[in-house]
Amino acid sequence: MPGKIICLGLGPGDPELMSVRAHRYLTNARLVAFFRKAGAKGVARRLVEGLLHPDATEIPMEYPVTTEIPVSDPRYNAALAGFYEKWTTKLLRRSEEEDVVVLCEGDPFFYGSFMHLYARLPRERVEVVPGIPGMAGCWTATGLPITWGDDILTVLPATLPQEDLARRIRDTDALVVMKIGRNLPRLRAALESAGRADQAWLIEHGTMAEERVQMLSEVEGPVPYFSIVLVHGQGRRP
Amino acid sequence: MPGKIICLGLGPGDPELMSVRAHRYLTNARLVAFFRKAGAKGVARRLVEGLLHPDATEIPMEYPVTTEIPVSDPRYNAALAGFYEKWTTKLLRRSEEEDVVVLCEGDPFFYGSFMHLYARLPRERVEVVPGIPGMAGCWTATGLPITWGDDILTVLPATLPQEDLARRIRDTDALVVMKIGRNLPRLRAALESAGRADQAWLIEHGTMAEERVQMLSEVEGPVPYFSIVLVHGQGRRP
Ligand SMILES: C[S@@+](CC[C@H](N)C(=O)[O-])C[C@H]1O[C@@H](n2cnc3c(N)ncnc32)[C@H](O)[C@@H]1O
Ligand SMILES: C[S@@+](CC[C@H](N)C(=O)[O-])C[C@H]1O[C@@H](n2cnc3c(N)ncnc32)[C@H](O)[C@@H]1O
Repeated sequence: MPGKIICLGLGPGDPELMSVRAHRYLTNARLVAFFRKAGAKGVARRLVEGLLHPDATEIPMEYPVTTEIPVSDPRYNAALAGFYEKWTTKLLRRSEEEDVVVLCEGDPFFYGSFMHLYARLPRERVEVVPGIPGMAGCWTATGLPITWGDDILTVLPATLPQEDLARRIRDTDALVVMKIGRNLPRLRAALESAGRADQAWLIEHGTMAEERVQMLSEVEGPVPYFSIVLVHGQGRRP
Repeated sequence: MPGKIICLGLGPGDPELMSVRAHRYLTNARLVAFFRKAGAKGVARRLVEGLLHPDATEIPMEYPVTTEIPVSDPRYNAALAGFYEKWTTKLLRRSEEEDVVVLCEGDPFFYGSFMHLYARLPRERVEVVPGIPGMAGCWTATGLPITWGDDILTVLPATLPQEDLARRIRDTDALVVMKIGRNLPRLRAALESAGRADQAWLIEHGTMAEERVQMLSEVEGPVPYFSIVLVHGQGRRP
């Protein structure tokens, strides 16, 4: 019997928010893979600092492109496709003798990079452990519930065009916007044109050591990629 | 120093999917409160079977109304408001000497009943531990990622009018519908009129012992309240 490739949803950041199962797999793993930008430590890897088995071998999977080529350029997709193909093959090989654990921020099936390996792997060789999505760590950090009663929640990537953002922000009760970073100016304009800029919160690194929770109107300057914008629902509350 | 009221997000159902922190609080707690329908064991209570401390005292909080009065009737809100007031006072009193843990399915701030106590409690006396929302357990159970690339996710309660459901189902990439139960026929009609009935999955009791994962088109007869309908996004995948 070959080993498995087990993707662990690590949750929003605080290591105590990972699931009991993820924690068990993580602390026993001998092969630990994770994505990272070339040259960086890797966000997921940082979240498990001090938790790896002393005999664990680390397998960093370094993205070939991040910001050099625009997402719309076909070469972007081609470079990433090759990268995911390569790592699918490598992880399958590494897992023949022993399980390989793959670290993933939040929940793996919610905008996670692991999905691109998952789609290429034979089902019987993979296991996915869900995690608390980053957004749940972020709304908990605001101290306010996100959805009440019949509230509708819309989750948007901030990469969408400004008009699309504005239309959808106008037309929802509760709102979560992911992938903020350099998209903040466009998102801010969309929130303003939807008349909801005053209600928006910005959470940087929710539940991590560097967590920062602010009203968006108070935020100045650039924000990290690991930020989420929220508008809380106001539905029925007996 | 008085104790705290600590709400634990238990995650989707499988006890190993609760967070390390929730597990720690739970197994040490001496006072364990949970909501339930009069006469029932309580969904959240069932999820922690076998995990409570031998000296734990259980505090069931029984809903005064569930289905007898329609949600639109002002008496429904009044009965619930009184119920939440009463338990706010009771839990505050019980927590004066010792922490009280409150069990919550999924994530407490995502359509959770605890929010109605939370809104009435002094902030310094409450702590909320996030959990994996039921929907993340459900999409993991389908074996397919829910959102890719720039996908938009819409979360709807199945309690909405059919026209609203249909319009929003038509206008999203990925879809989660909560609170199914008796609302299934209306939801099914909405999915059909939006042309997406064939893509929909129904997950009953995701990650629990009685989990059932089906295409909605294969589902016959009534489904439990603890069901979620999903349509997976089809966004960019290199
Ligand atoms: C590629 S997506 C991965 C999402 C992840 N799988 C999840 O379940 O949250 C990366 C985006 O997640 C969001 N994010 C995830 N965790 C976060 C956290 N703890 N604080 C702030 N943003 C977070 C940010 O918007 C970031 O741009
Ligand atoms: C009052 S809401 C509570 C939601 C919960 N706080 C969460 O984070 O998922 C109850 C609804 O959650 C959904 N739900 C929660 N957990 C589920 C599971 N494991 N399987 C199926 N549905 C679930 C069902 O749609 C149910 O009607």
